[in-house]
Amino acid sequence: MEQPAIPTLAETVAEYARRAKAASRAIALASRETKDVVLREAADAIVGSMAEMILVANGLDVADAVEKGLSAAMLDRLRLDAKRLAVVADQTRAVAAAPDPVGEVSDERTLPNGLRISHVRVPLGLVAIVYESRPNVTADAAALCLKSGNAVILRGGSEAARTNGVLAQAFRAALARNGLPTHAVTPLPTTEREATKHLVQLTGIVDLAIPRGGESLIRFVTEHARVPVIQHYKGVCHVYVDGDADPEMAERIVVNAKAQRPGVCNAMETLLVDRAGADVLVPRLVAALRAARVEVRGDAAVQALVPDVVPARAEDFDTEHLDLIAQVAVVDGLDGAIAHVARHGTFHTEAIVTRDAAKAERFLREVDASLVVWNASTRFNDGGELGLGAEIGISTTKLHAYGPMGLAELTTRKWLARGTGQVRG
Amino acid sequence: MEQPAIPTLAETVAEYARRAKAASRAIALASRETKDVVLREAADAIVGSMAEMILVANGLDVADAVEKGLSAAMLDRLRLDAKRLAVVADQTRAVAAAPDPVGEVSDERTLPNGLRISHVRVPLGLVAIVYESRPNVTADAAALCLKSGNAVILRGGSEAARTNGVLAQAFRAALARNGLPTHAVTPLPTTEREATKHLVQLTGIVDLAIPRGGESLIRFVTEHARVPVIQHYKGVCHVYVDGDADPEMAERIVVNAKAQRPGVCNAMETLLVDRAGADVLVPRLVAALRAARVEVRGDAAVQALVPDVVPARAEDFDTEHLDLIAQVAVVDGLDGAIAHVARHGTFHTEAIVTRDAAKAERFLREVDASLVVWNASTRFNDGGELGLGAEIGISTTKLHAYGPMGLAELTTRKWLARGTGQVRG
Repeated sequence: MEQPAIPTLAETVAEYARRAKAASRAIALASRETKDVVLREAADAIVGSMAEMILVANGLDVADAVEKGLSAAMLDRLRLDAKRLAVVADQTRAVAAAPDPVGEVSDERTLPNGLRISHVRVPLGLVAIVYESRPNVTADAAALCLKSGNAVILRGGSEAARTNGVLAQAFRAALARNGLPTHAVTPLPTTEREATKHLVQLTGIVDLAIPRGGESLIRFVTEHARVPVIQHYKGVCHVYVDGDADPEMAERIVVNAKAQRPGVCNAMETLLVDRAGADVLVPRLVAALRAARVEVRGDAAVQALVPDVVPARAEDFDTEHLDLIAQVAVVDGLDGAIAHVARHGTFHTEAIVTRDAAKAERFLREVDASLVVWNASTRFNDGGELGLGAEIGISTTKLHAYGPMGLAELTTRKWLARGTGQVRG
Repeated sequence: MEQPAIPTLAETVAEYARRAKAASRAIALASRETKDVVLREAADAIVGSMAEMILVANGLDVADAVEKGLSAAMLDRLRLDAKRLAVVADQTRAVAAAPDPVGEVSDERTLPNGLRISHVRVPLGLVAIVYESRPNVTADAAALCLKSGNAVILRGGSEAARTNGVLAQAFRAALARNGLPTHAVTPLPTTEREATKHLVQLTGIVDLAIPRGGESLIRFVTEHARVPVIQHYKGVCHVYVDGDADPEMAERIVVNAKAQRPGVCNAMETLLVDRAGADVLVPRLVAALRAARVEVRGDAAVQALVPDVVPARAEDFDTEHLDLIAQVAVVDGLDGAIAHVARHGTFHTEAIVTRDAAKAERFLREVDASLVVWNASTRFNDGGELGLGAEIGISTTKLHAYGPMGLAELTTRKWLARGTGQVRG
């Protein structure tokens, strides 16, 4: 007797995606009111009726992760408690309160032939989010995608599978209660890497894939994808302190950029100091970083000025430590700084500290990054801080969204033309 | 004795792309005046000092193409003469006359903490254009990419290789005369498909790949690309004639959409007619199309109304004929039309003809296409017609550019923040 045929992994992934895509149509046409009610009900459930289920699921995920020997940092990112659930719910409510980008009209005008033209924001369709351990991404992604009129298919990390499943369920139940298809929030039933590969090859079904996570995940998605990808890649962010900088301001910015929250992509990884002034600036800035418990690694010039500094390895200058570690190099003025950033930058966030406006404007113009900063911390590259509202991440892809990616960046614009019988001559 | 090592195809392509990328920096920082002079000098050369060289090269390409047995339509697209060169030069001058998108500032504001924010248009870097027979694309792509501050690498079709090479040379000579690097316009020295594959995998070097051409070319690029791709894919465009349409207007629009220029992507391929009114509308519209020398293929309902119509095959409804052929189907009103377009549309251009504004607005809202038209011809989906200026094509990718892709769509926007020492708390 033959074995009964069971679906292959590729078939399974495609079928889940097709259902999510079919659901996207109803979400695209849903009113703002309905979408906001769904988000608020999901937020209520996360801190109310479903809170215990989420924490139980999370406890099981954490127990497995402990057994597998995950690092303390990863366990911390995985773990939820009542306080963290409250933050997740608040963020979901903030998305509900934000304006709806869908239907926003721009570029309205009447052409000489009488054709009335406009450009209107419409959802993308189905967005695939591929991410790693943090379960709060599940709720953020569901809220942002639904609010922008999209369906979302979620491929989270295996270590958070149970937690992600229950969080997604909070949104699915709210969708069902409001007459919308539950498949609009679809967690993939598998966390195999092969499943990700199949998912990002579904041209015509998946409209956008967003990988969020470490280098290996992003490389994997980029290598295999046939659908459009917006990368949220690493930030090897620099602060260049010019010889004309106010030393007190430089110290404040450098310490904030590195140490205020070292585990995020807009934290400074590399400090560049102008050779003119290095003898004063380098010892002062190194001391300030050390006072903030930062391990400082220096190039040869820095080692000459601060003999007990850890020697920087070449690869440090391309490393996102996400930790209290910073490498410091002395460069030949503005040109040296711009050249260093062009070689080692990751198109994320770059800052200059100087009192010289002409130098600052040259840095702002010539440096290619999603945010270029003069006399402020790199930590401002954030949708909330820039006044753009909630974000799904910081895109380092130049196409479509370069920098913080909020609700508007989860939509596109189609042209409408209203005529009275116009034809082309 | 060992053979001397020669570079592999992959190494060669990567080296050409690296040189073009290095050149992109100078183009990004070039003034509008310099860029415009380059384009005007190239245009002058195309109709002046280099015209004979271009026509000689083109004559050789055409002779080879005749020998290889290329179709009359392909030969026509390949062939240049003095009149066509004048058009190429005029288009290049029109790009020179268009506003420069680079440096355009938007979203300027001061945050509560005093940080001054703005969003500024910057070039993408290096754009790869992969295209087929028409040599005018070489000049259009070079002009549009340079004007928008980008370098361009051109992989044209083998049948136009000599013509493309000389046309590119017109731009390279103008770049050199104006102190800009010639590598900013780089025709690949090979037209092998393998070269295209290597080209679109150069992450970190190529910032955007634009395939323009037939289905097999676009599939090949999408399948192999690791860099962002914006597709200029086929247009299976529909006109839906509602039972409430003005028959005279419907006839005018349908004939214009199909027959005014059948070989382009915004031409109508499929006519959908409302069942309510089909008995009058179908015979009238079929007769009008036939009068414009269009071969009409009908579904069963159309065959019943016009017995001598050619029966439409199922695959006709997914075919971009680019010829004087149209398929006609009867649908169940607006819902039937929207469902047909959702199934067979290619996100390009879709039109409704009706006197009923409510039906029209539903069609405009629910149909997903880069341009949705009410009571006008599909032929208006064109950068020039919509008042957007010259275009590099019509994107059917929803990300970044959906619809006509002009100068602004060849740029991105970076954030600038000007502070006075702000840090994050």
